[in-house]
Amino acid sequence: MRLHLLVVLILSFATPLRAEDALSSWNEGQAKKAIVAFVSRVTQPGPDFVKPEDRIAVFDNDGTLWTEWPAYSQLLFALDRVKALAPQHPEWRGRQPFKAALAGDVKALAASGEKGAVEIVGATHAGNTPEAFQAIVSQWLASAEHPRFKARYDRLVYQPMLDLLAYLRANGFKTYIVSGGGAEFLRAFSERVYGVPPEQVVGSTIVTKYEVLDGAPVLMREAKIDFIDDKAGKPVAINKYIGKRPIAAFGNSDGDFQMLEWTTAGPGPRFGLIVHHDDEAREAAYDRKSSVGRLDRALDEAGKRGWTLVSMKNDWKRIFPAP
Amino acid sequence: MRLHLLVVLILSFATPLRAEDALSSWNEGQAKKAIVAFVSRVTQPGPDFVKPEDRIAVFDNDGTLWTEWPAYSQLLFALDRVKALAPQHPEWRGRQPFKAALAGDVKALAASGEKGAVEIVGATHAGNTPEAFQAIVSQWLASAEHPRFKARYDRLVYQPMLDLLAYLRANGFKTYIVSGGGAEFLRAFSERVYGVPPEQVVGSTIVTKYEVLDGAPVLMREAKIDFIDDKAGKPVAINKYIGKRPIAAFGNSDGDFQMLEWTTAGPGPRFGLIVHHDDEAREAAYDRKSSVGRLDRALDEAGKRGWTLVSMKNDWKRIFPAP
Ligand SMILES: [Ca+2]
Ligand SMILES: [Ca+2]
Repeated sequence: MRLHLLVVLILSFATPLRAEDALSSWNEGQAKKAIVAFVSRVTQPGPDFVKPEDRIAVFDNDGTLWTEWPAYSQLLFALDRVKALAPQHPEWRGRQPFKAALAGDVKALAASGEKGAVEIVGATHAGNTPEAFQAIVSQWLASAEHPRFKARYDRLVYQPMLDLLAYLRANGFKTYIVSGGGAEFLRAFSERVYGVPPEQVVGSTIVTKYEVLDGAPVLMREAKIDFIDDKAGKPVAINKYIGKRPIAAFGNSDGDFQMLEWTTAGPGPRFGLIVHHDDEAREAAYDRKSSVGRLDRALDEAGKRGWTLVSMKNDWKRIFPAP
Repeated sequence: MRLHLLVVLILSFATPLRAEDALSSWNEGQAKKAIVAFVSRVTQPGPDFVKPEDRIAVFDNDGTLWTEWPAYSQLLFALDRVKALAPQHPEWRGRQPFKAALAGDVKALAASGEKGAVEIVGATHAGNTPEAFQAIVSQWLASAEHPRFKARYDRLVYQPMLDLLAYLRANGFKTYIVSGGGAEFLRAFSERVYGVPPEQVVGSTIVTKYEVLDGAPVLMREAKIDFIDDKAGKPVAINKYIGKRPIAAFGNSDGDFQMLEWTTAGPGPRFGLIVHHDDEAREAAYDRKSSVGRLDRALDEAGKRGWTLVSMKNDWKRIFPAP
């Protein structure tokens, strides 16, 4: 009893990171102010205090935690993978969507539609176990260079968002990724890069089958979509995996609209944040007309819904971590 | 730095519960010995040490954590629910499977097959939000009496398994429920009864749709099966939700076979345990021929697979918590 009291007393000195230090890659401004105000509201004693177990924060990944410009990194992975596998598939040279993928012809690839996409996913993401697939992703991350920013893909994460993840966790939040990207693609690096363990990664999934091969049980990834974790799928997946409504949600596109809508419609203090890519010089500027990370309705409605709109140009001191 | 050291020193006195105290509802015997030996192996320094974040333990629910005799509690909930809703559905009196449900005619109900089951699930589990559904389950738990054991359903949990859950958690394990029962049914009581929070409950799911009704976003449960978390579905779901292979798995029937098989086939120290219902006097005796919790193949293979077989009669000092 006395021992317990002593531990509590001592731990109480280990106060959460001061916001000034924790969010040092954020410029002083409305966005940073709103984040800090929300976190104090829910962590300080008072009517808006939220118990640590209910401090659930959900983050989109592409365009929110790492770059998605000029194309989703997982698509670029798939194209690299088609190239790597091509020598074993001479038939791909004359067949769409592989011909387009090998030529890097994104237009022809898009023209192959959902059927083409499923074929590419099947050839590059399926027919292996989760462990084997993640090893492939890790190897790719360790060796591939992003075509535009000339760096490893996993270095093209946003320093201000890394700071934000750490700041929230230091304040007792549990941070989840809720991404349209593949769950097992993300799990190859989420813990190392974001500090988010596998069980806190919610993503799109392909069908996985349990099989016993020569006496050894394995899970096999099949060329069949199981669930697309985007738009209205995000609140559905959050409910399915977490079973609680988050109190804070972070996104960058209309694909996050429902996640923010659902999160911020809950009772008590809520926080919604949209990262607006308006930094042509340091990263990219795109929104309503973009084919990646289209931000249109959420841009119109952020104000009236009380969501914080982050200007990468004005709110972020730096974009990527120092090399 | 000095502060940190002090905290570590003090915390090091807070040693895990001694097994004798923690597992006091277990008789001395092979089963208890095996549990304690495994936990020491993975928590003590040495070649078999497992980092806390990889100490994942998965538990079946029906027949493993609470009674499933003479019928699954969720089925009895559904039948109670049909009765409660019957006054609003006069047409049920002449229509199967409802007629059978209202008469408590389990045989006729079983004869209505999967189609009948889906109709019952639709009428009793769907058309509401997760919050509303969980409120119904909570209310039922607070008022319903188990037909055989004459107690609240949530008192018919196994004290030795509650002790085991607590013992594992005190040793740095993260405990999950992986059940063929409904995830949202389980989440209505898992934290209160088992200390397992919603995000650590994996179960069967029905399709849930996101809708905005009069400006308010809601999730609506539909009369459509999404995923059955049983047999080969269990390792699939564990991989999907947790993204890691557990190091310990606990079950009671052939529905847990693949979960134990997959868990114990991993490298390093692994633990599989099967609860055998052989206690006619205190609970029930059933295995190979039972329609609930059929235990046949796993009973044959437990020995050669190194799984611990628990005799409720011999290994458990008490079955249910003291009233
Ligand atoms: Ca995005
Ligand atoms: Ca069972």
